[in-house]
Amino acid sequence: MTSKEKIGKLTLVGAGPGDPELITWKGIKALATADVVLYDALVHPDLLHHAPAARKVHVGKRAGKASTMQEEIHRLMVHHALQGAHVVRLKGGDPFVFARGREELDQAERYGIPTAVVPGISSVQLAGYYGIPLTLRGVSESFWVVTATTQSGGLSSDLLHVAASTATAVILMGLGKVGEIMRVYRELGKGHLPVAIISRGSLPEGRVVWSSVDQIEELLQTEPVAAPGIILVGEAVAPHAVAVLEPQLAHYGAE
Amino acid sequence: MTSKEKIGKLTLVGAGPGDPELITWKGIKALATADVVLYDALVHPDLLHHAPAARKVHVGKRAGKASTMQEEIHRLMVHHALQGAHVVRLKGGDPFVFARGREELDQAERYGIPTAVVPGISSVQLAGYYGIPLTLRGVSESFWVVTATTQSGGLSSDLLHVAASTATAVILMGLGKVGEIMRVYRELGKGHLPVAIISRGSLPEGRVVWSSVDQIEELLQTEPVAAPGIILVGEAVAPHAVAVLEPQLAHYGAE
Repeated sequence: MTSKEKIGKLTLVGAGPGDPELITWKGIKALATADVVLYDALVHPDLLHHAPAARKVHVGKRAGKASTMQEEIHRLMVHHALQGAHVVRLKGGDPFVFARGREELDQAERYGIPTAVVPGISSVQLAGYYGIPLTLRGVSESFWVVTATTQSGGLSSDLLHVAASTATAVILMGLGKVGEIMRVYRELGKGHLPVAIISRGSLPEGRVVWSSVDQIEELLQTEPVAAPGIILVGEAVAPHAVAVLEPQLAHYGAE
Repeated sequence: MTSKEKIGKLTLVGAGPGDPELITWKGIKALATADVVLYDALVHPDLLHHAPAARKVHVGKRAGKASTMQEEIHRLMVHHALQGAHVVRLKGGDPFVFARGREELDQAERYGIPTAVVPGISSVQLAGYYGIPLTLRGVSESFWVVTATTQSGGLSSDLLHVAASTATAVILMGLGKVGEIMRVYRELGKGHLPVAIISRGSLPEGRVVWSSVDQIEELLQTEPVAAPGIILVGEAVAPHAVAVLEPQLAHYGAE
């Protein structure tokens, strides 16, 4: 399929939140026709088996070198696609939910490389995976997705607005800032609000920690949670809604 | 696998936003072991082929009879699962994004029926499918998902807060209320904001209509859009970000 005469293509594929079975069928098909796969650190290694013939390149970002690595990803994408390869950029979660998917498409399009996007299950959807509603009629009728950490490293200013609203907050990349985030809620007199943290969701070791704005920090001292994780805050996520769900479909069955 | 002696199970499966290839591999596996599939109106018929041996029951809600139909869905779920069946509830999009997934789990758990959730690609993620960013560094650093229509039929009061914020608005079930929604933005002096409407996204007939708060209504008079659709409003969705993407992976290829 690769030839020097014709240009290749770039497909951004969402790998899903952890469990390798949460990739889409379209994503599997894209991998099956890939010549080159550029994959992130959070991508489950089993997913690479869908691309047996492809060259696989780990492009996970290392702390402090994110911008250099993003340039290198752009360079590799363009280099291989211009040689006729079908390049699959396999990204954790969904390629367009806080994931710089647009930048990667822009880069390819600048060189006339055809592009497509195959969405992935986002970590936002891990709430549903564990049976936690993001909306509850008459209580919280919308949800607001925000990343805790901005490029400058500080807390996102949007968080103050999220906390002041009645929307359920879905906070990504916030595990290292739980104290700061909860302070924002407490200063608004919302210390009673339920909080759920989903750690390594959809993986076998995935778990949910339930608490409240006032108590979550103390709880995390005895029950630390591993990244990646998402933080949910709002009336809708109240513990009445907890379900004990099997994390893997394979473990199913009624005794 | 079904027997009168043991209880079955219920799996909520997200069918994705339209294209039948946007279901997850885990969802396909759940369908393959289903004895009964209860499917919504918006579910692509090809997905039912993954459950060749199952009894398939269309439970799409009819206008004005939604509550009756929801009770009937609950009854069918419980009835079949108590007889030992693996019941798959196949829902358009994601089962927990404005989709009453929690109510269906509650109903099953009341009868001691084991449950699980397989997330689906939500219509929210159609933005990325068409290359439209929901966030843009320094411009809009979060997105807020809201349904335009509340149970009472009126416009959601959350919409006013969404419009007043700097978050990108992702408005579901709003095609019949475009005029009301745009009025909210105009009253806040935000008539210049970019608007994108994605109609029947990820299906072959899917398309994106680009405009602004001030001009979208006039455009829709000559370019009507078909449901289902989502409305995106915010600086991040500006037309500079348009990509011409193939709607079907199968149509791919560099010439």
